[in-house]
Amino acid sequence: MHPQRCYTLSASCPDRVGIVARVATFIADNRGWILETSHHADADTARYFMRIEIRADSLAFDLGELRRRFRPIAEEFRMDWRITDSAVKKRVVVLVSQQEHCLYDLLARWQSKELDVEIPCVISNHETFRGFVEWHGIPFHHVPVTAESKAQSCAEVIRLFEEARGDVMVLARYMQILPAEMCEKYPGRIVNIHHSFLPSFVGARPYHQAYLRGVKLIGATCHYVTPELDAGPIIEQDIVRIDHGDSVEDLVRYGKDIEKAVLARGLRYHIEDRVLLNGNRTVVFR
Amino acid sequence: MHPQRCYTLSASCPDRVGIVARVATFIADNRGWILETSHHADADTARYFMRIEIRADSLAFDLGELRRRFRPIAEEFRMDWRITDSAVKKRVVVLVSQQEHCLYDLLARWQSKELDVEIPCVISNHETFRGFVEWHGIPFHHVPVTAESKAQSCAEVIRLFEEARGDVMVLARYMQILPAEMCEKYPGRIVNIHHSFLPSFVGARPYHQAYLRGVKLIGATCHYVTPELDAGPIIEQDIVRIDHGDSVEDLVRYGKDIEKAVLARGLRYHIEDRVLLNGNRTVVFR
Amino acid sequence: MHPQRCYTLSASCPDRVGIVARVATFIADNRGWILETSHHADADTARYFMRIEIRADSLAFDLGELRRRFRPIAEEFRMDWRITDSAVKKRVVVLVSQQEHCLYDLLARWQSKELDVEIPCVISNHETFRGFVEWHGIPFHHVPVTAESKAQSCAEVIRLFEEARGDVMVLARYMQILPAEMCEKYPGRIVNIHHSFLPSFVGARPYHQAYLRGVKLIGATCHYVTPELDAGPIIEQDIVRIDHGDSVEDLVRYGKDIEKAVLARGLRYHIEDRVLLNGNRTVVFR
Amino acid sequence: MHPQRCYTLSASCPDRVGIVARVATFIADNRGWILETSHHADADTARYFMRIEIRADSLAFDLGELRRRFRPIAEEFRMDWRITDSAVKKRVVVLVSQQEHCLYDLLARWQSKELDVEIPCVISNHETFRGFVEWHGIPFHHVPVTAESKAQSCAEVIRLFEEARGDVMVLARYMQILPAEMCEKYPGRIVNIHHSFLPSFVGARPYHQAYLRGVKLIGATCHYVTPELDAGPIIEQDIVRIDHGDSVEDLVRYGKDIEKAVLARGLRYHIEDRVLLNGNRTVVFR
Repeated sequence: MHPQRCYTLSASCPDRVGIVARVATFIADNRGWILETSHHADADTARYFMRIEIRADSLAFDLGELRRRFRPIAEEFRMDWRITDSAVKKRVVVLVSQQEHCLYDLLARWQSKELDVEIPCVISNHETFRGFVEWHGIPFHHVPVTAESKAQSCAEVIRLFEEARGDVMVLARYMQILPAEMCEKYPGRIVNIHHSFLPSFVGARPYHQAYLRGVKLIGATCHYVTPELDAGPIIEQDIVRIDHGDSVEDLVRYGKDIEKAVLARGLRYHIEDRVLLNGNRTVVFR
Repeated sequence: MHPQRCYTLSASCPDRVGIVARVATFIADNRGWILETSHHADADTARYFMRIEIRADSLAFDLGELRRRFRPIAEEFRMDWRITDSAVKKRVVVLVSQQEHCLYDLLARWQSKELDVEIPCVISNHETFRGFVEWHGIPFHHVPVTAESKAQSCAEVIRLFEEARGDVMVLARYMQILPAEMCEKYPGRIVNIHHSFLPSFVGARPYHQAYLRGVKLIGATCHYVTPELDAGPIIEQDIVRIDHGDSVEDLVRYGKDIEKAVLARGLRYHIEDRVLLNGNRTVVFR
Repeated sequence: MHPQRCYTLSASCPDRVGIVARVATFIADNRGWILETSHHADADTARYFMRIEIRADSLAFDLGELRRRFRPIAEEFRMDWRITDSAVKKRVVVLVSQQEHCLYDLLARWQSKELDVEIPCVISNHETFRGFVEWHGIPFHHVPVTAESKAQSCAEVIRLFEEARGDVMVLARYMQILPAEMCEKYPGRIVNIHHSFLPSFVGARPYHQAYLRGVKLIGATCHYVTPELDAGPIIEQDIVRIDHGDSVEDLVRYGKDIEKAVLARGLRYHIEDRVLLNGNRTVVFR
Repeated sequence: MHPQRCYTLSASCPDRVGIVARVATFIADNRGWILETSHHADADTARYFMRIEIRADSLAFDLGELRRRFRPIAEEFRMDWRITDSAVKKRVVVLVSQQEHCLYDLLARWQSKELDVEIPCVISNHETFRGFVEWHGIPFHHVPVTAESKAQSCAEVIRLFEEARGDVMVLARYMQILPAEMCEKYPGRIVNIHHSFLPSFVGARPYHQAYLRGVKLIGATCHYVTPELDAGPIIEQDIVRIDHGDSVEDLVRYGKDIEKAVLARGLRYHIEDRVLLNGNRTVVFR
């Protein structure tokens, strides 16, 4: 993301001759200065993906007018499209449980403005991090979850997310499976970090599964949440080498470093509108 | 592996007090000079693993005598054990199909003596690499495989392997599933390279599976062959990063680089007696 | 690189509004189907870089006509530009000394058409690989180099390169320093693999230097050759982890795997016109 | 490190026959249960290095008695040696400046007991993190540094370190060059994180240097501080891939993730007595 204020157009549409020409000519005709541009033509789905950053001060009008002027082109090419303004910070609601690593990591990035977002609140099923979160001046909501209260707890999380006008919900090792209705309510807006290299070791205790299988590398996966467990579109993955001397506890420890790094990268791509959905796969314009 | 001629003791046994003391004292009493030593106590299985390289010229007797003298200790501690002589090259029989990358890579290492083994022959179900292999002065056997001839072909491969007095059989992208009897006949002696990061994408067309799942890294796995497909003990793994711009063909291309590197490392560990079996897992003393 | 025949336009020019619009409109007006497109605006140098692949069969005219029609645009924007045809294979002259790993690796890729180039000849200061190269049907030239004959040997290498109509000269561990005049004669056309992570360990015996410094990772660097030793624009780099147990010989062995992988990637980027020079740095559209 | 309380013997001495036998027999004779053992024979320096973890409850006596009994062996073999008790937490004094990433990372690990140490205080030349540190219940000392006050400030840091009975001083992006006398006062006890892949880019602004050189990977190095700037024994290093699209600011951002990971690993090795000095190189028993 460039330091200047910019508008980011991200779009996908059926591939055909002339898409770039039309969009780029539109921008040039309005004297728009392009900071960064990425394209991808997907041969399998015959779909075209693009992301363009335009310097805000190079245009003589505002975001609303930009959207209004661009709409006819988007309709002509049947685009899924969006234009965002880097001056409007995304609102990220963070859900945690009792593990500290992703939470500390996200708040460190937020504190230094490396992760340039608003965090309107943190929600947890435990009280563990109330003090730490509130010390940062961020509201903390304790929403306990039990087998019986599950539905009610989810409703409360949704209420808090809506109240906070959240753009994206981040499951920073939240350790709770969300009900299908909730996943479907926010497609492409709930980002999870799973502690394995998916599709290996879906579900519970992946480090234990990895240990038993005797793999030589373990990983972590940042993905969008969908109703099917750990099967949503993958945004980012990484791995770390282990060996026979490492216990399950060592795997958990190494894994934490990968988890927080992968989540931070994946969230950043999402926040900067670098992730476009292509069925159950993602285009990530890094 | 040290450049000097050495004897390598590798052993595992139930863990207890005094194993190292007894073995090390035995070596010291015989004036043995230890070049390299590795140990691992497995907390789960309560089993102890060790590998010790002793300079051959530091002992006043030969390999046969070393084994004879060591046997009582091995029996006392109920060891699975082996002592090998670095001057006796392992005999590696290579099986290939029609892909060149692992074969070229192995022969380059063999030619430069980096991989210090004998290759008594290469066996293939295609004639493709006869000229290349024979140019290196290595016998080439064409053993065609069809659905009907499968059992007969395997019998012929076994016959050639026995005739060549092979120590280890390397499936260098052989692309044929071996019958269970064959796997069971050579436990820990058939090394395969699978073109995925196991346990993800078992079986056929793993790059295609990886593409469809939208993973952001692909991998390769070197493992011992067991009757259950792609489920044997893992020796080595590695991965390479891909992105949305990569087609299945790109994955295949990147994958080849990982496959040959992982196979070469795994085979080297095996050849140098660095791999000890611990159930379906491996201890690899790198 | 796409399997279809394509024309690849690569260009750089001073950054300004309207470059993409103009180029893309030109392509669209000629019904050109864009397969892949990459852009980079360099904030420091205020220079714009682009690379566009156009399906050859989407244009109603040939390469010469494409170049003729594009020239006015290139001149208007003061572009450094080039349009190549994927059907015209690049001619790669390989220089080697006595190490086998890069040579085997390149010929394996060439043999399988993964590296889709012509290799009109291999030149070496030793006879070592004559048989291997000639077995592949590739002419082999032995050009001995001594301290006294250096200038004459270089002249002979240049003569052979010109005679072979080489597009690019690859120093596949050639182990000879080229005279400045030769480097200047072929700017951006001589690709070297240096066996360290530059700028660390310039010059001779980099693995020995790395061992003495006690680094925990070693690397390799693929770069264009310039008159200043190991200081040319870097195309690609990679590393491998080592530890205290590794001798200089182990470093050399691990290093070979990195060297051949990095050279193969760097050469591929060069061959596919993915590398654009930006002063002493490179833009690599992967 | 094993969850059970253990004594860790780490030692180096001139290599000769019988070291392992003598040490292991000593342990066995005292019924010591070995949890983990690592050895390294350095061919260049003819020196032997070892690290052995013994379960504390397997010995019938305490640490003082263990040291007393071991001393004659240590003297016979002329060992540099040390025996530590995992129940006695190391005291880590952290020095920071104005960057948050390493501090947040270390405190997260400390808070979860992953990094099982005491942090008696944090020292900084800025007030920036007073609140954050004190919220964790850790004393914070502000020791301003100016060109004139340098000597006096260092004296104050030393005083605070001594007062805190620090075992190790961690420069968590402290950004101040320590005077030679201070480095010499605590050999092998001051751990620094340098934001480049040493020996490349010594000194100030390494990311800027890396950007200008056009490298394709950037790194970080955890090392012991010695009087020569950024030239001390290296404990751990790692890298991350960058490309032409990354600005210096991007490099700084990516680098932070590597810095904190490398520092955490290096510090952990140090804390667990896994690092032994071998001249200006390290043996790291991971």
